[in-house]
Amino acid sequence: MKFQAPKGTRDFYPAEMAWRRWLEGKWRAVSIRNGFEEVEGPIFETLELYTAKSGDEIVNQLFQVTREGSDKIHAIRPEFTPTLARMVAEKANALPKPIKWFSIPNLCRGEQPQRGRLREFLQWNIDMMGIAEPIADAECIFTTVDLLSELGLAPNMVKVKISHRDVVRRILSRLGVADDHMVATFELLDRREKLPDDVFRERANAIGLDGTALERLDQVALVRYPTSEPWDQIKARIPLPESDLEDLADLHDKLRAFGIDDWCEYDLGIVRGLAYYTGTVFEIHEITGAERAMAGGGRYDQLIESVGGPPTPAVGMGMGDVVLSLVLQDKGLLPHDVMPQLDAFVIAAAEAAQSRVPDLVATLRAAGLHARFSYRSTTNVGKLLKEAAQHHARAAVILDDNTLSADTVAVKDLATGEQTDVPSAELTSALLHSRR
Amino acid sequence: MKFQAPKGTRDFYPAEMAWRRWLEGKWRAVSIRNGFEEVEGPIFETLELYTAKSGDEIVNQLFQVTREGSDKIHAIRPEFTPTLARMVAEKANALPKPIKWFSIPNLCRGEQPQRGRLREFLQWNIDMMGIAEPIADAECIFTTVDLLSELGLAPNMVKVKISHRDVVRRILSRLGVADDHMVATFELLDRREKLPDDVFRERANAIGLDGTALERLDQVALVRYPTSEPWDQIKARIPLPESDLEDLADLHDKLRAFGIDDWCEYDLGIVRGLAYYTGTVFEIHEITGAERAMAGGGRYDQLIESVGGPPTPAVGMGMGDVVLSLVLQDKGLLPHDVMPQLDAFVIAAAEAAQSRVPDLVATLRAAGLHARFSYRSTTNVGKLLKEAAQHHARAAVILDDNTLSADTVAVKDLATGEQTDVPSAELTSALLHSRR
Repeated sequence: MKFQAPKGTRDFYPAEMAWRRWLEGKWRAVSIRNGFEEVEGPIFETLELYTAKSGDEIVNQLFQVTREGSDKIHAIRPEFTPTLARMVAEKANALPKPIKWFSIPNLCRGEQPQRGRLREFLQWNIDMMGIAEPIADAECIFTTVDLLSELGLAPNMVKVKISHRDVVRRILSRLGVADDHMVATFELLDRREKLPDDVFRERANAIGLDGTALERLDQVALVRYPTSEPWDQIKARIPLPESDLEDLADLHDKLRAFGIDDWCEYDLGIVRGLAYYTGTVFEIHEITGAERAMAGGGRYDQLIESVGGPPTPAVGMGMGDVVLSLVLQDKGLLPHDVMPQLDAFVIAAAEAAQSRVPDLVATLRAAGLHARFSYRSTTNVGKLLKEAAQHHARAAVILDDNTLSADTVAVKDLATGEQTDVPSAELTSALLHSRR
Repeated sequence: MKFQAPKGTRDFYPAEMAWRRWLEGKWRAVSIRNGFEEVEGPIFETLELYTAKSGDEIVNQLFQVTREGSDKIHAIRPEFTPTLARMVAEKANALPKPIKWFSIPNLCRGEQPQRGRLREFLQWNIDMMGIAEPIADAECIFTTVDLLSELGLAPNMVKVKISHRDVVRRILSRLGVADDHMVATFELLDRREKLPDDVFRERANAIGLDGTALERLDQVALVRYPTSEPWDQIKARIPLPESDLEDLADLHDKLRAFGIDDWCEYDLGIVRGLAYYTGTVFEIHEITGAERAMAGGGRYDQLIESVGGPPTPAVGMGMGDVVLSLVLQDKGLLPHDVMPQLDAFVIAAAEAAQSRVPDLVATLRAAGLHARFSYRSTTNVGKLLKEAAQHHARAAVILDDNTLSADTVAVKDLATGEQTDVPSAELTSALLHSRR
């Protein structure tokens, strides 16, 4: 009987896992220094939490969870935001505001596996709740940029594309899209590049966007405005009165105050597929457009109230590990040396010393040293040193007849080849001291 | 609309999550220093992987996973060992032996939630593959004890109860249990304390264990033998010839070589519920018996071959977070101060300084410092210092009119109350230097 990993999922063997832990460590360190606190939730939630709150695209990809003897239907989480909203709603009054949370959940979506898309993936989430002003949107984007920069990426490699649903809504409204078609229009615009042109036009027409309106939309949506330009110059190019752009003007000011305007540009063609976004929305893209979006986020001021909480303004960002890793690989930014270092490989060079090995290994480990030994019964030092080298040990600790009589051990530095006798009682401190 | 977390699952708010990360950090550090490398697998697997390999108890508790448009049935992992066996089987020839892996998966079982049992929990797994000798069993137990000791537990609080399925099988065989009833007998014995006495006796009789045989079994199974006793004394009390006890004799020798005999005892009443165990089995119990088993493990020499791999001897251990946390809480061993420390809370004491805050915060964060600021528009230093204290900041960095003219900032140590002026250019290194 042969078994395989389910389609679109991954097995993390030690080398892949070490890289995953490295990335998680970066996500965590950047989150913490930006003032976010970590949270986690269940791997599955009530099905209704998603059917009520996520967009159609995600709902169609749900993995349903059932159990014999129960008629409850759950779903493996396809995104973290509904869980987060539920958690905030449940304890809203007990939580000091503002709330700044991060999480690194694994998520499942039944998509067709392809480059940049898997059925199970990791996603770094940061969310700020309780701040209605664009300073929160700007800090979310800043934290995302802090991560990109920490990984070695630069403004000439990736771009934060920023839009605003209120602004796009007002433009669409002026082009003839009715309010009750607005969410469907956002979902359609989000899928624009994935749909054949004629299918897109047909669906757009059905929503109220005819040929002329689409053309005028393109004039707005296909232009990019670098954040480094002065606001007066940008606002003149958006076909709305100044009073409709106050939120975006404030965001512009804050992005520049954080000093990240060279990483960002406005791109009103960005709308995001999720149903619950309200104000600012943004995506991170590799600059050549070679990959899918590396991250996305936005403001969702109504979500927490809609799951039973008090009215709570909120803004957040999600970054998956799959596209990010493709971009890092492509730029040569994946680290090489991420496996834990082996401090000592303990060798018995004489039969009488073999029974001493476990005890010495136990002593080293209790001191926090990473120590291994051979499971073979040989006392051939050459073979055992070779095994130590295969494990990339920094030192071999050699027990022999001399050890038993004089109570010293030989320590061989496997980088330099130098061998010295060390009193047994000083071995632990010597090995700790020589740690890189 | 109100939503709740699914029954038996947990929401980890920042305080609970910080504790969870602390525990995961301990599991990881102990694993690494004992020479284990981390792996992970998918959150769900083919249903058949479990129905074929796990015991009935686990199979009855599976959460099934389905997706519209597909007739494949998967199950959320109720344990990690089948995934591990599949991963080893798939790459057996490419993996250097011995294989020593650890993992910290979340697992789901549809049990009735109760003290010590949840429907989703974390489990630390360590597994050694490719070593048939009891040195591997002993090192698995040693690593488990290393963790218990690292957490502050001691031999007078918890006990490793060790048994051996071959030994128990031979005793049962002599008592009249047929070979094809053996797995069912193990499962029955494992549930002995959970079943009413008459139900247990009825089922035992059906398997071939009548009144006299059960009595004789009790004479063996209810006695404890401390590992610190000499082997000759122990073996004399097990009703089997010496040739049937060689494996256990070797294990005894290795447990003592690792110096953990005061943590262990033999308890032939331990059999473990899982179908795939072959030789050594063990459980960790709080010494008063107040809680369920804290951890369990054993040898499963046939599992990897049965999922399509080459014959590969293996031994492993799994430790959940739920019972462990109850025991740690009960012993007062849960740490208090596990939230990340806040290095600096940046305050604008003058309106002209407010726009400088994001830039300074960005600089501190880029240097790896954990920095926050207030989202309120006030410049009232008293209020802002109070906010800094609520965040448990170690320092407040105060920008005022003086900052703008003289390019210095005031740094207030919030532990001592001492305030000093620091040149802006030296702020980062001063804060890094004063880190605990």
